[in-house]
Amino acid sequence: MSARLRHLISLEHLDADTLTRLLDRAESLREACAHGTRKLDLLAGRTVLNLFFEPSTRTRTSFELAARRLGADVVNFDLGNSSTSKGETLLDTLHTLEAMHLDVLVVRHRESGTPEYLVKHAASGVAVINAGDGNHAHPTQGLLDALTVRQHRRDLHALTVTICGDVLHSRVARSDVHAFAALGVREIRLCGPAALLPAPAEFRNCRVMEDFDAAIAGTDVVIMLRLQKERMAATQLPDEAAYFTRYGLDGARLKRAAPDCMVMHPGPINRGIEIASDVADGAHSRILEQVANGVFVRMAVLAEVLGR
Amino acid sequence: MSARLRHLISLEHLDADTLTRLLDRAESLREACAHGTRKLDLLAGRTVLNLFFEPSTRTRTSFELAARRLGADVVNFDLGNSSTSKGETLLDTLHTLEAMHLDVLVVRHRESGTPEYLVKHAASGVAVINAGDGNHAHPTQGLLDALTVRQHRRDLHALTVTICGDVLHSRVARSDVHAFAALGVREIRLCGPAALLPAPAEFRNCRVMEDFDAAIAGTDVVIMLRLQKERMAATQLPDEAAYFTRYGLDGARLKRAAPDCMVMHPGPINRGIEIASDVADGAHSRILEQVANGVFVRMAVLAEVLGR
Amino acid sequence: MSARLRHLISLEHLDADTLTRLLDRAESLREACAHGTRKLDLLAGRTVLNLFFEPSTRTRTSFELAARRLGADVVNFDLGNSSTSKGETLLDTLHTLEAMHLDVLVVRHRESGTPEYLVKHAASGVAVINAGDGNHAHPTQGLLDALTVRQHRRDLHALTVTICGDVLHSRVARSDVHAFAALGVREIRLCGPAALLPAPAEFRNCRVMEDFDAAIAGTDVVIMLRLQKERMAATQLPDEAAYFTRYGLDGARLKRAAPDCMVMHPGPINRGIEIASDVADGAHSRILEQVANGVFVRMAVLAEVLGR
Repeated sequence: MSARLRHLISLEHLDADTLTRLLDRAESLREACAHGTRKLDLLAGRTVLNLFFEPSTRTRTSFELAARRLGADVVNFDLGNSSTSKGETLLDTLHTLEAMHLDVLVVRHRESGTPEYLVKHAASGVAVINAGDGNHAHPTQGLLDALTVRQHRRDLHALTVTICGDVLHSRVARSDVHAFAALGVREIRLCGPAALLPAPAEFRNCRVMEDFDAAIAGTDVVIMLRLQKERMAATQLPDEAAYFTRYGLDGARLKRAAPDCMVMHPGPINRGIEIASDVADGAHSRILEQVANGVFVRMAVLAEVLGR
Repeated sequence: MSARLRHLISLEHLDADTLTRLLDRAESLREACAHGTRKLDLLAGRTVLNLFFEPSTRTRTSFELAARRLGADVVNFDLGNSSTSKGETLLDTLHTLEAMHLDVLVVRHRESGTPEYLVKHAASGVAVINAGDGNHAHPTQGLLDALTVRQHRRDLHALTVTICGDVLHSRVARSDVHAFAALGVREIRLCGPAALLPAPAEFRNCRVMEDFDAAIAGTDVVIMLRLQKERMAATQLPDEAAYFTRYGLDGARLKRAAPDCMVMHPGPINRGIEIASDVADGAHSRILEQVANGVFVRMAVLAEVLGR
Repeated sequence: MSARLRHLISLEHLDADTLTRLLDRAESLREACAHGTRKLDLLAGRTVLNLFFEPSTRTRTSFELAARRLGADVVNFDLGNSSTSKGETLLDTLHTLEAMHLDVLVVRHRESGTPEYLVKHAASGVAVINAGDGNHAHPTQGLLDALTVRQHRRDLHALTVTICGDVLHSRVARSDVHAFAALGVREIRLCGPAALLPAPAEFRNCRVMEDFDAAIAGTDVVIMLRLQKERMAATQLPDEAAYFTRYGLDGARLKRAAPDCMVMHPGPINRGIEIASDVADGAHSRILEQVANGVFVRMAVLAEVLGR
């Protein structure tokens, strides 16, 4: 049996056993909730602090709900009101919070590597969970995407997964690749405008493609990434309509995929930019299931790092 | 017996039985708290999300306290930190939150109709409570105003209620009119500068009057509305002092009302603009009772929409 | 036995018995937590409202954790979202919050005297705790500093305590002086640039000194104050480096103190301005112990004012 995780920073070096244990835990929490369990007390008396240096709706609220449903107390660290505005260093903030006897620090930061840096300096009793750092990793998103696929497909080894959009700057894409590769997906395709694709050396286990019509052909899962509008300039595409024509997912393009292709998106979606409304709301869409699974995955990760 | 409410969007079509059931419930919660009950567990395991698109002190805190005193978890959706800043549509926000298994969505929005729109699109398990939408409705305010009057007056059918100020833009006035009319108040008077009065067709069951001295004469209840300073320009009154002279409530004017006239205001009050300090703080004032009743009314509404 | 405190506004008139009772209570809470007690229910059903008119990381979070660990509900009053932006007076805010049946109001305000003013006008059932007002007082900081010293030194009567920096504008310095003087410390030295020292009449029981090398000589405890950068202009020192040369605490200067001198700072620290990093992180530093003690002191104060 794989060792218990003390922190969750990235999925990069996690093996299939560890991922499967987390997904199984999330699944059993989902079933408990479906059977009416509204609240568990696994984490009663524990304190989870949300330390968000970037705005987020879904992820912060999802962690907050996950922690509360396990009986933990949650403190939201409001950065507009924080000492970081007084120039306190990140490590001083960390050590100050630790001294108050937190159990888990859920951190989001625009700079890649911040959660890893906190782990290196954190006291032994504090678990760090990465809620997204720069372009580096968003491990709970990778897990919830894997959980969502696993709920619909028994055999991941037979699957082709296509991730389309601004892969270069996407922590979601990186964590998805790590999760799906470790779980043995047959083929992962990364697709986007050349300027938004990573260097070939980064993803040797993926097919990197510029033509979305080719990339989507026969795929079992398509994960559309959110386009940051300020990134579109790099693509040399004249406008959002041109981006959509080349890289947007509409009903016609979806027909090129496998007949039961799952459509996913980490949200929030840009309707008409990377995805057409009828596809986002259509029968293939698993976008809201992803959101629901996010709470269960985060419950599982909180229970894991706290050893419960 | 009237049917249980699944949502609370407006008081417009609620009958006296339904209103009375809610007020009775609020009253019994008030009595329980007065006898030392600090916390109930009626809503244990339920999650209430405060989705406020407009700033509010009283109403958000009042809902938060109401929910917690019933044992629910409360999540405040901080819009400065939300995906709405990333251009997510209102419906995508709704569906995302629903997917996280919320039980109640308490919503305030500057646009009339937003809560109704959310009800139309909400999943069956989610209750929506309107915490104020544009000029349309503020139903818990209407209920708490009715509760406050009922605590002092046995027979509502004998009462004259006067509402004074910017009636045109006031959701409070509309919900008050619906509540007091359904509960059988004898006469409702709406008073304000012509530019801030609604079209006569809207309130056929009210007397609409421009002269406050006439409107207040003999009234049993006077509800003063907050004047948004940017609205004063429309009145063609030169300044706040002139507004106060015509439409402010001071001790002299209050003497024109019934001897035991109740003075009410939804808050926050503008001292010296719509109400004189000695009246706001005087023996006739029920303003702080309104605030206290607000918590009990919101507890009653939460219990109602959750079927507890 | 000294009377129970109903509020905590300042340490100025508290006697040694009262201070000792609070510190003993904090100590026993610390021991309970060290032995695995994660949560008490002393304050179950009580509501604590954090009313912060100034930004704060440590203090607000520390109070929030203290209240929750005693089982209370905590409501954070987000001033960006509050009616104070609508021009509501402080007293109207107070009375509104009281009407919602709060038990404790934790208040921070830039103007000295605000918490005392609230006490004068608060209803009998509401306790006010000062979390810092202007230059006046920060009583829980004074208590936690005393607790930290007491954990390391059995006999406070033999101690010399030196407080260095912008004493003139420091509520921390004032509360520290009150605490240490009442507890019988032998000598308190206040040190800083002339422009940042209080009038001699204010602290008759202290030695006021401009030369930090002299002030630190032989001291048992040195408390470094945070320098507000905008205050440096008054000192006529050309820049931060010059301030550090004269009033910063580095290893060389620390050698002038007693061999086991405790180094303290209320935080957040300005590394390289008032304190060198190797001293802040060094063996003499008690800065993080102060933070940890802050939670226990605030638990003790909450229990005290609520009579539990």
